[in-house]
Amino acid sequence: MKSAVKELEEKGKAAKAASRKLAFLSTEIKNKALVNIAEALVDKKDEILAANEIDYDEAKASGMGEAMLDRLMLSPNRLEGMAQDTKTVAALPDPVGEVLDMRTLPNGLQIGRRRVPLGVIAAIYESRPNVTIDISSLCLKSGNAVILRGGREAINSNTALARVAQEACHQSGVPQGAIQLINSTERALVNHMIKMKGIIDLIIPRGGAALIQLVSENAAIPVLTGGIGVCHTYVDKSADLNKAVAIAYNAKVQRPTVCNALDCLLVHSQAAQAYLPSIAKEWAKAKVEMHCDERVMAILKPVPSLKLVPAADEDWGKEFLSLKAAIKVVDSLDEALEHIEKYGSGHSEAIVTEDYSAAMRFLNEVDAACVYANASTRFTDGGQFGLGAEIGISTQKLHARGPMALKELTSYKWIIFGSGQVRP
Amino acid sequence: MKSAVKELEEKGKAAKAASRKLAFLSTEIKNKALVNIAEALVDKKDEILAANEIDYDEAKASGMGEAMLDRLMLSPNRLEGMAQDTKTVAALPDPVGEVLDMRTLPNGLQIGRRRVPLGVIAAIYESRPNVTIDISSLCLKSGNAVILRGGREAINSNTALARVAQEACHQSGVPQGAIQLINSTERALVNHMIKMKGIIDLIIPRGGAALIQLVSENAAIPVLTGGIGVCHTYVDKSADLNKAVAIAYNAKVQRPTVCNALDCLLVHSQAAQAYLPSIAKEWAKAKVEMHCDERVMAILKPVPSLKLVPAADEDWGKEFLSLKAAIKVVDSLDEALEHIEKYGSGHSEAIVTEDYSAAMRFLNEVDAACVYANASTRFTDGGQFGLGAEIGISTQKLHARGPMALKELTSYKWIIFGSGQVRP
Repeated sequence: MKSAVKELEEKGKAAKAASRKLAFLSTEIKNKALVNIAEALVDKKDEILAANEIDYDEAKASGMGEAMLDRLMLSPNRLEGMAQDTKTVAALPDPVGEVLDMRTLPNGLQIGRRRVPLGVIAAIYESRPNVTIDISSLCLKSGNAVILRGGREAINSNTALARVAQEACHQSGVPQGAIQLINSTERALVNHMIKMKGIIDLIIPRGGAALIQLVSENAAIPVLTGGIGVCHTYVDKSADLNKAVAIAYNAKVQRPTVCNALDCLLVHSQAAQAYLPSIAKEWAKAKVEMHCDERVMAILKPVPSLKLVPAADEDWGKEFLSLKAAIKVVDSLDEALEHIEKYGSGHSEAIVTEDYSAAMRFLNEVDAACVYANASTRFTDGGQFGLGAEIGISTQKLHARGPMALKELTSYKWIIFGSGQVRP
Repeated sequence: MKSAVKELEEKGKAAKAASRKLAFLSTEIKNKALVNIAEALVDKKDEILAANEIDYDEAKASGMGEAMLDRLMLSPNRLEGMAQDTKTVAALPDPVGEVLDMRTLPNGLQIGRRRVPLGVIAAIYESRPNVTIDISSLCLKSGNAVILRGGREAINSNTALARVAQEACHQSGVPQGAIQLINSTERALVNHMIKMKGIIDLIIPRGGAALIQLVSENAAIPVLTGGIGVCHTYVDKSADLNKAVAIAYNAKVQRPTVCNALDCLLVHSQAAQAYLPSIAKEWAKAKVEMHCDERVMAILKPVPSLKLVPAADEDWGKEFLSLKAAIKVVDSLDEALEHIEKYGSGHSEAIVTEDYSAAMRFLNEVDAACVYANASTRFTDGGQFGLGAEIGISTQKLHARGPMALKELTSYKWIIFGSGQVRP
């Protein structure tokens, strides 16, 4: 543990030193480095895939499940996808240096806010090795140094990927130290990282609820948390039922393992009889297990071939991350709003309605990062929102909310051009 | 302590409940409440001043110093000033509801970021009772509920002021619970406040370094810290020396007890002989005690009637908050930049120069909330920056940096208007 802390502190200092130069590195060099990383991911695929194979074999031998193994695995195709994503980041506008609200005050002072990098960003993440490249690319483009702390099971893959990125950066003229990977995967190291005031400007925990809670409750430095999504779709009495079927189906089935997937379907009692059998039939085709309250059960039970389970108390407010959904009948928009306020995680919430006032009330009153009328919550994503990429989805309110892309990895400083002004 | 915690929790819940309604309270009602508060401050001055007298007498009897007593004291004039400030906040544009970046995506989704209140803001502050009204006004206008925790020595004044504000709010149709004052002034209560996740959305500690450190290192909720300003003014070799005298004089003398006052003067060796005697002569008239490094001492010692002290190591990076300044000769802009990086607190830093490249390098490279060329650091202030008011000056990089006004007390949510879109 002692040597792990020493490694962390040395790499932290190196990242800090690099961050000062990165802050005014030209867009040209940053983009060149990103393109070089993209090319190196393909050129050096043998080396990367060999390292990944070691991780994969060890994980398999230790009994890791199929879904996790799939997350861990790299392939030539996946590397090409990562290369493409890196080129996409290169093509995005550089957020650094943008000046907001520049104006001249009555006393002649010219004053504005210039967008600057945050400094050093630390990311703690789990098994997917592509995150190493995603986060490195976004931090590099936004002028931040990064300290990467990936999961134990992907350490060989992450080491190979970080080396490839570091070499490509070095060849492009990026200051040394910009990308730091922590070799030690000791769990206790996180407790040390979250206290590194003066070195780390922002820490982003990406992982399970336990990690996020540990970091956000104990960090002595700013934290951006997110990724926990308990998402509701409310089908109003005046919903277009075809849209409501398509939206709820998409929100649950298109990719059930992610944070913006539907967890709970709320249906107005006046729409329940007509709507529930239709969505249940579609969901049943996709093998969705439905956790139904009593009123839903009463309506659906006569329909054969459905996977119905009586809803338990803990199903409300649960993030299923799988082909399961809770379903509840409500008697009013107000009841739906109350349910969402009580059980939502502030991630993504949707209403399906043709009633203008109901849509506006929902958009106004629901307190979440992303609030939808008549669309699937699956759109909550930096790429889908037109931000090009994302480092995560924030469910906190300070600094950034929802998809966090390049701008969200910056701060600003006030710059003031004077000509000798003093305060009267 | 048990009853204090109970009070805090009950008031926290009440604030939370109010915040939901405040989020979409009309600007009209908020402004009406602010004007009513302003009028009540004048109408009920006897009641407020009587309460203030109790605090003042107790503080005086317990041996409080003149400067602190002055901060604590209210007067008809000061109440009128507070009323005027409250009317100023009423006249500012309402930040809530502004929609940023609204656009239509290729799939027809209309998407934008709508500015929303943060929710519940908790403020911990010390002896100045006017802060009770300042913070309440800014929170009300920005649609936030507020939990106020003022200093023990001002408890009677704060109670009277909060009651006046609460009554004015109530008469104007503001939801009950929007302004909460904690009666208990037990110190240990702070430890409880900073863990109130799910109730408090942002905590702002305003006070000494010990309070700020306690809160920022131990809070389980987001914190905005600031107010510690170790501010440098660097006089470059090519400075206009008249401007440099006026700027350094203003930065140190105009109001020495505040965070944006000059703490350290750095002078290029090629300007030192000509400049130091001039600024020292002016500062001496204002009774500034000068803590000089050896080279400064060698230049100034022959000048009679100066208050010179050899600089100690701890003078670099010290926030004096009084008529004291550290002075150092440097041999280059680089040395000045390094000194500021090492000793600055990221608050306000200035260069005085006629050299274009030196000015640009300083503005680009100094990492602080406010970076000036050829102006006094005393301008770092919400009012001076044209923001109308401020709740504090942030020296952190996340969320807000520099003066925090109404916009800085908001977050945003993504609103998405669809017509049945699903993710492909």
